[in-house]
Amino acid sequence: MRTEICDRFGIEFPLFAFSHCRDVVAAVTKAGGFGVLGAVAYSPEQLDRELSWIDRQVRGRPYGVDVLVPGKIDESASDPGARLLDFIPEVHRDFVAHLFAKYGVSSDRTFTAGQAGPHPTTADELGRRVTHSGATGLIDVALRHPIGLIASALGTPPPVMVEKARAAGVPVAALVGTVEHARRQVGAGADLIVAQGTEAGGHTGEVSTMVLVPQVVDTVAPVPVLAAGGIANGRQMAAALALGAEGVWCGSVWLTTEEAETPPVVKRKMLAATSLDTVRSRSRTGKPARQLVSAWTKEWDEATESPGALPMPLQMLLAEGALARIGAAAESGEPGARELANYFVGQVVGQLNQVKPARQVVYEMIEELSTATERMSKITRA
Amino acid sequence: MRTEICDRFGIEFPLFAFSHCRDVVAAVTKAGGFGVLGAVAYSPEQLDRELSWIDRQVRGRPYGVDVLVPGKIDESASDPGARLLDFIPEVHRDFVAHLFAKYGVSSDRTFTAGQAGPHPTTADELGRRVTHSGATGLIDVALRHPIGLIASALGTPPPVMVEKARAAGVPVAALVGTVEHARRQVGAGADLIVAQGTEAGGHTGEVSTMVLVPQVVDTVAPVPVLAAGGIANGRQMAAALALGAEGVWCGSVWLTTEEAETPPVVKRKMLAATSLDTVRSRSRTGKPARQLVSAWTKEWDEATESPGALPMPLQMLLAEGALARIGAAAESGEPGARELANYFVGQVVGQLNQVKPARQVVYEMIEELSTATERMSKITRA
Repeated sequence: MRTEICDRFGIEFPLFAFSHCRDVVAAVTKAGGFGVLGAVAYSPEQLDRELSWIDRQVRGRPYGVDVLVPGKIDESASDPGARLLDFIPEVHRDFVAHLFAKYGVSSDRTFTAGQAGPHPTTADELGRRVTHSGATGLIDVALRHPIGLIASALGTPPPVMVEKARAAGVPVAALVGTVEHARRQVGAGADLIVAQGTEAGGHTGEVSTMVLVPQVVDTVAPVPVLAAGGIANGRQMAAALALGAEGVWCGSVWLTTEEAETPPVVKRKMLAATSLDTVRSRSRTGKPARQLVSAWTKEWDEATESPGALPMPLQMLLAEGALARIGAAAESGEPGARELANYFVGQVVGQLNQVKPARQVVYEMIEELSTATERMSKITRA
Repeated sequence: MRTEICDRFGIEFPLFAFSHCRDVVAAVTKAGGFGVLGAVAYSPEQLDRELSWIDRQVRGRPYGVDVLVPGKIDESASDPGARLLDFIPEVHRDFVAHLFAKYGVSSDRTFTAGQAGPHPTTADELGRRVTHSGATGLIDVALRHPIGLIASALGTPPPVMVEKARAAGVPVAALVGTVEHARRQVGAGADLIVAQGTEAGGHTGEVSTMVLVPQVVDTVAPVPVLAAGGIANGRQMAAALALGAEGVWCGSVWLTTEEAETPPVVKRKMLAATSLDTVRSRSRTGKPARQLVSAWTKEWDEATESPGALPMPLQMLLAEGALARIGAAAESGEPGARELANYFVGQVVGQLNQVKPARQVVYEMIEELSTATERMSKITRA
């Protein structure tokens, strides 16, 4: 079960696993796939610690790092002297306070927009990390480890990222949601394109994987393409290869694995959700990102009193602080907080009904891929 | 290149072609696929004439008919004594008149909501046809011809349709956009399920083909499933088979064929469109249906003065009358009418860049399917 990129990346299966959890990254890499750590939630020091841990686990097997480098950010947020929190309008802070009151979310101190997130960090640090300068710090740390890929999750990889990666001999991947973006990313130096359909979790465009992948493959050839969005089993992996992709990039499927650090309340929501229970909403980051439907998305997207989402990274700053507090309240059993709690996930959430080890997910996908291709061979020969 | 349904339906390729144009239906059937005529625009007498023409063309080769039987219609519209036009509120008529004035659409007489559509018929006839009683008349006509399939495009096939089809020995197909609908359709007697992703043209749900098809296949087994939405080339057909479908159901790809009766202005828009140029909008029928973005969809969906779409079939009645006039004005060169003109089409519109005979489309799809499956066999053996 090999495509050309297997040789290029030193892996057994053309299966790339995006996760914010180091245990998932290590487990997939050890199972013969390629784990990619999402670095946005980390400070450079934290990232260094996580990657050192992964290095010890995978013992030379290949893995990668994904950083969020927004192509277009709110200009006010790029002033290095400014405190990002100062740019959040009063009406948005008030709306979050209103949601806390309406849903009875307790707070041991007065709620502060941008309060500490899941990883101990200040709001300003979090905000800066998704600016160009913030991402550069993470890139430097990542390239000091023996990574096999560095990915830009949003927007064109900046020249500094491409230059540094080239100098380190590390291929650059870029996620795209349109043909035009794919063309631009290859022009900017991407060595691998991840064509991500609208059904994917997190930041997505509007075009489905089925429609997007063949167009991107034709546009960027001979640059290899991974398919992302709607892929969580072996039949979907087979479909991605049939569309012309050289492999797949999966994110959502790991969120309900044993290794995932997904908060228990959210994990239970995911296990119970159908494929109708996600929405593309700006309410978490300021850009359209697919996530579980919850009171949080409904209030921001539909309530008449909603001020609407702020641009990135301001909405991210406001939302992640509030959702960290909501998450803690939800885990301690507060019913209103449980209604609000959500997380990024793709439409495949409807298939995720059981907690499994990440390694088992890999093996089951590869086995089903094999069965699916055998069935297709029979059809073709008939 | 055969699946089980090829034997069952007497076809060479598991490729079902939905079209409102009899020439496309006949061409695909003659090329070894299975043409399905969309009957909603016809009166029973017209349908009889169209099917007699197809009978003469295909000489015993299999084809089918698709009727629109809405599961949930505006109750006021089911009163057989009422004139449907009387149920269209003044504010909606006024908004259409406003659009005609704003875009300078000429009218040789005062615009009347529900005025004659592309096929000569009264608005009331058109409206009734999408009620249960209207659809029944079309079903009776269809079953007097040697059809190999009768399909329900929207909602559960009503008992009368299933009974009549059973008595005539004709399998019943039903289009679904969710797993729950698939379960219900099989319960109602559907012999074949068409699982249609959100990327499809016309009435669609929210779940993508990649995510929907495997779930529907698992839910309704052993009832066979066709995949629809996002399928317009052989790689996409291969992907559908990889997902577990027994075949594919394509609609959009025929709209730019030589045989299609697509109005020239709309055909040119389709050839120029990218996959970003469609939208799911209620503005044509009252239910979410994917179509070209145009001034028509933007005004109904986004303008502050828009009264919002009426329920089906009232919006359909209002829109089809107006769009018929807009279409005529667009073809005669009126620029405002050209901005408004649109039609149902899926996201694959971005792939449709060249007018081809329908037969060539079939052969190219099958050839590319063959290449795609060969590539996959190599990957599996590697």
